[in-house]
Amino acid sequence: MSIFINRFVVVGIGLIGGSLATALKQAGACREVIGIALDGQTCSKAIALGVVDRAYTSLADIASELCAGDVVLISVPTLSVPAVLQQVKDLVHRDVTVTDAASVKGSVLAAAKVVWPQAPANLVLGHPIAGSERSGVTAANPNLYANHRVILTPLEQTADKHLQLVSSMWRAAGAEVLMMSVAEHDDVLAATSHLPHAIAYSLVDTLAHDAENENIFRYAAGGFRDFTRIASSDPRMWHDIMLANKISVLKSLDLFSDNLARLREAIESSDGEALLGVFRRAKEARDEFTQVMVASKSASDVKL
Amino acid sequence: MSIFINRFVVVGIGLIGGSLATALKQAGACREVIGIALDGQTCSKAIALGVVDRAYTSLADIASELCAGDVVLISVPTLSVPAVLQQVKDLVHRDVTVTDAASVKGSVLAAAKVVWPQAPANLVLGHPIAGSERSGVTAANPNLYANHRVILTPLEQTADKHLQLVSSMWRAAGAEVLMMSVAEHDDVLAATSHLPHAIAYSLVDTLAHDAENENIFRYAAGGFRDFTRIASSDPRMWHDIMLANKISVLKSLDLFSDNLARLREAIESSDGEALLGVFRRAKEARDEFTQVMVASKSASDVKL
Repeated sequence: MSIFINRFVVVGIGLIGGSLATALKQAGACREVIGIALDGQTCSKAIALGVVDRAYTSLADIASELCAGDVVLISVPTLSVPAVLQQVKDLVHRDVTVTDAASVKGSVLAAAKVVWPQAPANLVLGHPIAGSERSGVTAANPNLYANHRVILTPLEQTADKHLQLVSSMWRAAGAEVLMMSVAEHDDVLAATSHLPHAIAYSLVDTLAHDAENENIFRYAAGGFRDFTRIASSDPRMWHDIMLANKISVLKSLDLFSDNLARLREAIESSDGEALLGVFRRAKEARDEFTQVMVASKSASDVKL
Repeated sequence: MSIFINRFVVVGIGLIGGSLATALKQAGACREVIGIALDGQTCSKAIALGVVDRAYTSLADIASELCAGDVVLISVPTLSVPAVLQQVKDLVHRDVTVTDAASVKGSVLAAAKVVWPQAPANLVLGHPIAGSERSGVTAANPNLYANHRVILTPLEQTADKHLQLVSSMWRAAGAEVLMMSVAEHDDVLAATSHLPHAIAYSLVDTLAHDAENENIFRYAAGGFRDFTRIASSDPRMWHDIMLANKISVLKSLDLFSDNLARLREAIESSDGEALLGVFRRAKEARDEFTQVMVASKSASDVKL
């Protein structure tokens, strides 16, 4: 692959940004990788690991160098994105391509509107549907995005050249790039990822507080274990996501709670037909979903 | 191993009974395996596969042969157990050891009280915490119970010789045998298995009906997939379990719904401390649970 990105600047050198940096290096897609991390030790570690070529504790240290053909990736925790957007506005030339990797896109768009007040043509909002239970720069993995999906949510004013550069960047890391609106992204992720995490956390918290069953975890069967693996994800990250995507999460949560209340009613009234209806529809939908996932060849280790 | 069971009679030749039959044969623990299945084709298949030595379409065909040292395992669907108990009372000598494998124990006990009216000394209620997504006699697997737990729930009147014979039987199949009360068993399983299944079915059913997001399964991230694998379990089996364990399931479901409602409130009011509290407690409990499971060496493929 020939180099098509000049400088790749990763703001926040953790799993997400560090993995993309190593993937782009490995693919020979960029001339140089520059890391930005608040913590100087993270900077040193990222250089020592070969994740970045050089690193700074502030975007201000290198912002004036940047020009067209460079890409800035904002890969900090969701609720820290607004502060970085303000720095981008103040310091980075508007020919530089700027993108992000936050799990919620509506909150990033809202922050951009506060900063600019209209999101600029060089800002491309995106979200890689990939992750790991590990975090930090030491977890950086050049294969993290291979055969995974990345959703980009271009705005009306997003310039095509910036959108194309960001698309090419993710494809160079092995990802499949999809486009949808900010609203659709946040609704779909609320339903398929944020709601399941809320439920899993709540279930484990419920059982952990059930004082009557002190040995409850000892006898836990497989259904419980499968169900709760995701409850070991990073609490701070999920705190940020739930608050950033509040409206869509509450909408999904209410739909689920209504459905669960109907199931409860069917159990209480011994309505066997209603129970079988829910269980059969769910099994059919789930089995169909599995086939789609297998067909797309991305079923093996997709994670949020 | 020397033979310690004379005739092993499995009523319902499916995954659960067929697997125990093959395990006991392989261990050399019984002299002969006799299968009972309503469907003559199942009988022929079980003989052809070597799961049983002979097979009949009714317990009445061989009940008069049975005597002390024989074991009858009732491994039919949960809601079909009462009819088999009636046959056992009418046809089987009270020196024969009788046990079952149903997922709920309170409903079996209630049925036994209707039939006898006090459950007899030779009836040992039990539940192997093992299973598979496959079912039927062709899924019979002699290793299904290896390193898995079996919970026995002896009653005051259960005779020790029958309890010991059933314990030895499961241990011969490689299982670890635990004892608890009927009520404790049903509470623990409601919380750790029946509730998670109800939630998973309800979540998948909710998303399958979300007409706004027609592509919702296409973009589903890993959290969703992990969470919903169990929603592909057999609908009829779970219909039986939910109704048989109604009281404990409703109790667990209400505790969970209350916890989820509090989480919803914390999201709506942007109460970050409450959110972090739930997420951190859940992660700690889950991580601790995982350590217990790994330590018990039964974590690899335990399933209900």
